Amino acid sequence: MKETDAAAPTDLAVRDENGHLNADWIQAVETAVKANDAEHVQELAGDLHAADSGELIETLSREDRVALVQLLGEGFDYTALTEMDEPVRLQLLEDLPPDAVAQGIGELESDDAVFILEDMEQAEQDMILAELPSVESSQLRRALEYPEDTAGRLVQTDFIALPPFWTVGQVIDYLRSATDLPERFYEIYVVDPGFRLLGAVSLDKLLATKRSKKISKIMEETRHLVRVNEDQEAVARKFERYNLVSLAVTDDADRLVGIITVDDIVDVIQEEAEEDMMGLAGVGDEEISDSVFETARSRITWLVVNVFTALLAATVISMFENTIDVMVALAVLMPIVASMGGNSGTQTMAVTVRAIATQDLNKRNLWRVLRRELLVGLMNGIGLGILIGIIAATWFANPELGVVIATAVLLNTVCSALFGLLVPMTLNRLGVDPALASSVFVTMITDVVGFFSFLFLAAWWFGLPF
Amino acid sequence: MKETDAAAPTDLAVRDENGHLNADWIQAVETAVKANDAEHVQELAGDLHAADSGELIETLSREDRVALVQLLGEGFDYTALTEMDEPVRLQLLEDLPPDAVAQGIGELESDDAVFILEDMEQAEQDMILAELPSVESSQLRRALEYPEDTAGRLVQTDFIALPPFWTVGQVIDYLRSATDLPERFYEIYVVDPGFRLLGAVSLDKLLATKRSKKISKIMEETRHLVRVNEDQEAVARKFERYNLVSLAVTDDADRLVGIITVDDIVDVIQEEAEEDMMGLAGVGDEEISDSVFETARSRITWLVVNVFTALLAATVISMFENTIDVMVALAVLMPIVASMGGNSGTQTMAVTVRAIATQDLNKRNLWRVLRRELLVGLMNGIGLGILIGIIAATWFANPELGVVIATAVLLNTVCSALFGLLVPMTLNRLGVDPALASSVFVTMITDVVGFFSFLFLAAWWFGLPF
Repeated sequence: MKETDAAAPTDLAVRDENGHLNADWIQAVETAVKANDAEHVQELAGDLHAADSGELIETLSREDRVALVQLLGEGFDYTALTEMDEPVRLQLLEDLPPDAVAQGIGELESDDAVFILEDMEQAEQDMILAELPSVESSQLRRALEYPEDTAGRLVQTDFIALPPFWTVGQVIDYLRSATDLPERFYEIYVVDPGFRLLGAVSLDKLLATKRSKKISKIMEETRHLVRVNEDQEAVARKFERYNLVSLAVTDDADRLVGIITVDDIVDVIQEEAEEDMMGLAGVGDEEISDSVFETARSRITWLVVNVFTALLAATVISMFENTIDVMVALAVLMPIVASMGGNSGTQTMAVTVRAIATQDLNKRNLWRVLRRELLVGLMNGIGLGILIGIIAATWFANPELGVVIATAVLLNTVCSALFGLLVPMTLNRLGVDPALASSVFVTMITDVVGFFSFLFLAAWWFGLPF
Repeated sequence: MKETDAAAPTDLAVRDENGHLNADWIQAVETAVKANDAEHVQELAGDLHAADSGELIETLSREDRVALVQLLGEGFDYTALTEMDEPVRLQLLEDLPPDAVAQGIGELESDDAVFILEDMEQAEQDMILAELPSVESSQLRRALEYPEDTAGRLVQTDFIALPPFWTVGQVIDYLRSATDLPERFYEIYVVDPGFRLLGAVSLDKLLATKRSKKISKIMEETRHLVRVNEDQEAVARKFERYNLVSLAVTDDADRLVGIITVDDIVDVIQEEAEEDMMGLAGVGDEEISDSVFETARSRITWLVVNVFTALLAATVISMFENTIDVMVALAVLMPIVASMGGNSGTQTMAVTVRAIATQDLNKRNLWRVLRRELLVGLMNGIGLGILIGIIAATWFANPELGVVIATAVLLNTVCSALFGLLVPMTLNRLGVDPALASSVFVTMITDVVGFFSFLFLAAWWFGLPF
């Protein structure tokens, strides 16, 4: 029962109807934290889901974050650390006493513990692992040895594995009497004496089967199992494709190492699509809570690369200085040609990058897709060319200039379709992430082709010097 | 048992080690389909997961798709229709005999049936609904009445709901004897006589509890329930935040309407992140299997909008025709200034659009984020300005020109940070999807500011006419 107290409300909703954290509630928590009122803090924030407390912590100031965790004491669930941005998490881990952190992490599920540990400095990581019981710390050490972004890092080692000769009744009796069951589970795994995976029984199947039946009779052979070294994205693709909720992970000797559950995969899918989007926009792995310096440094790399592609475009223009000197209208119009190519190239590129990521583009349909993109480029190039041609001809009272710019727009649009597809495909074949590097090349090509085709055609048509 | 036959291999793996469909297997299916060999087709593709058969169908020609489905007959699971691109699905539905389609759809889970029906023409939809048993067709009609992209459209009406006074033993006995259980379930729902939702019991909890206990004692009150009219994205956010596997959906009178499972949410999350990315690149809801005409039409809208923003930039340049006439170097260098602003504006914009979508950006942190973006813009603007200034000064042997371009780059970079943040924020407040419309405005602003600041500063500094 919660007490009602006008001066210190404790019955505030955690989230408003839009799903945002309730500002009044945050305010109340903040006030209680600043007043060092442990009891009130616990009333307000003692029974939160990790996602809510993670987000709450993100909104507080650095001092208040530490104070909140300390005021909550035992009531603070370290799972919340997996639900906040990396910079906030690292800072908080630094600010909290190491033994409290070690204890908190020790209580987590193994996949959450790995998620937190993997971003820490080696020294801090070792310190925390040293404080844990040896079984747990060796499990975590093993998980941390798997390469980043592989299935091994997502593995949860808390699962139920039983021999095939058990009956359904035995399993149920065991589950009723066991005291150390995983917090949540969806399947029971069946293993041989060497811990090699034989199959899995989903709980609905288990519940709907008579007690006398052996679990080997109702288990499903795991068609979609995953190896520890498999890439996260490939694992995500399996969950998505086969509508899975959990999946067994085995080592090279077919031994069951642990399981991966869909909640971790939801995060992987989210991240993956986000990475493609950010990559295309020239932003790396960035969080809204990163520091100014960190952000500036990570973004400028991309911008500097773009300085050189812009310089290349400028060099093309400088080849036609004399042409422009005679006909300044060209300088006015030339960015239109480049920008049209850039925009249509970006369209093709985005579709291609996404299709590569979702495995919708492959050798079988490459030619069909290429033909389609070229035809789309041709159709849109003709449409845009005519529109821009008419505008330019009218503006400068020069129909021939209209024809020249229309032709250049058409050329550049078709080129942009071709390279918008081929650049990401080629990068992918070369093992370079197409989301990261495609934009630079495509923009470079559409700029160069745009400026060159327009200025060259104009110089040739009007017989201008260059 | 599968027969082995060298001439007609049936033991080919469906997927290769990269997770792509096995090309040899596709070839074998194609050959069998063309040979009209029903038995062999069934051996090869009769027992596929819907995801695999959906993808297989996508790779075949239009005629072979229909032939495959007909050769598989009863063995074809219409769930596969939910696993293929919309254009392929619509074409196939058109090509198949309507009564076969109606029968196939009648066997689907309600959420899958809705997914297929919602994209069909009204007339076809009615025809199929008319062929279904009245209970099913009225359920589907009701689901189709919910607005698109709401929870109601994702609802699965196949679930288990029981009264609170049942014991665990009764529940288990019921599950063992029932013949019409849902294909897969993760929770049992507890309802009152008016079908109002009281709570849910997860299967792991049910299995770990003694037979004599009442389910009302072990059920969890559903903290995270969803209304039929709630937006899909809000639902997805709940699954993601609270690591859910299934969620009850209620109507306005708190009655249990159905459930949503995580596999549908995985698709929503995927789509949502993809939409943001495609939106920023100026591509709408497009599939790689859309027709040329369809694609061209959907893309050109965006390109035409961009013609007018490019014209605005051209108008700015034309104000300085006389300036350029005197100093052609300006025409060579001006695209660099515009392009730097465009690139850094895109970075800020992508981060902002994503932060809005994931609810990481709100009133509380807006000022902090704005300050951060401006500082990042300032730092990178200074860095880029110096770099480009030195290059320009050297290239044209004109140090003053270096100072002018450096200043313009700095100005445009800071502006781009400001508007890269404010444009999506403002659009979002106005109820316009920031992913769709931000690019146009940000590019327009960075182009105009880029060209104007550089040409104006140059004209003023060197005392040129304009």
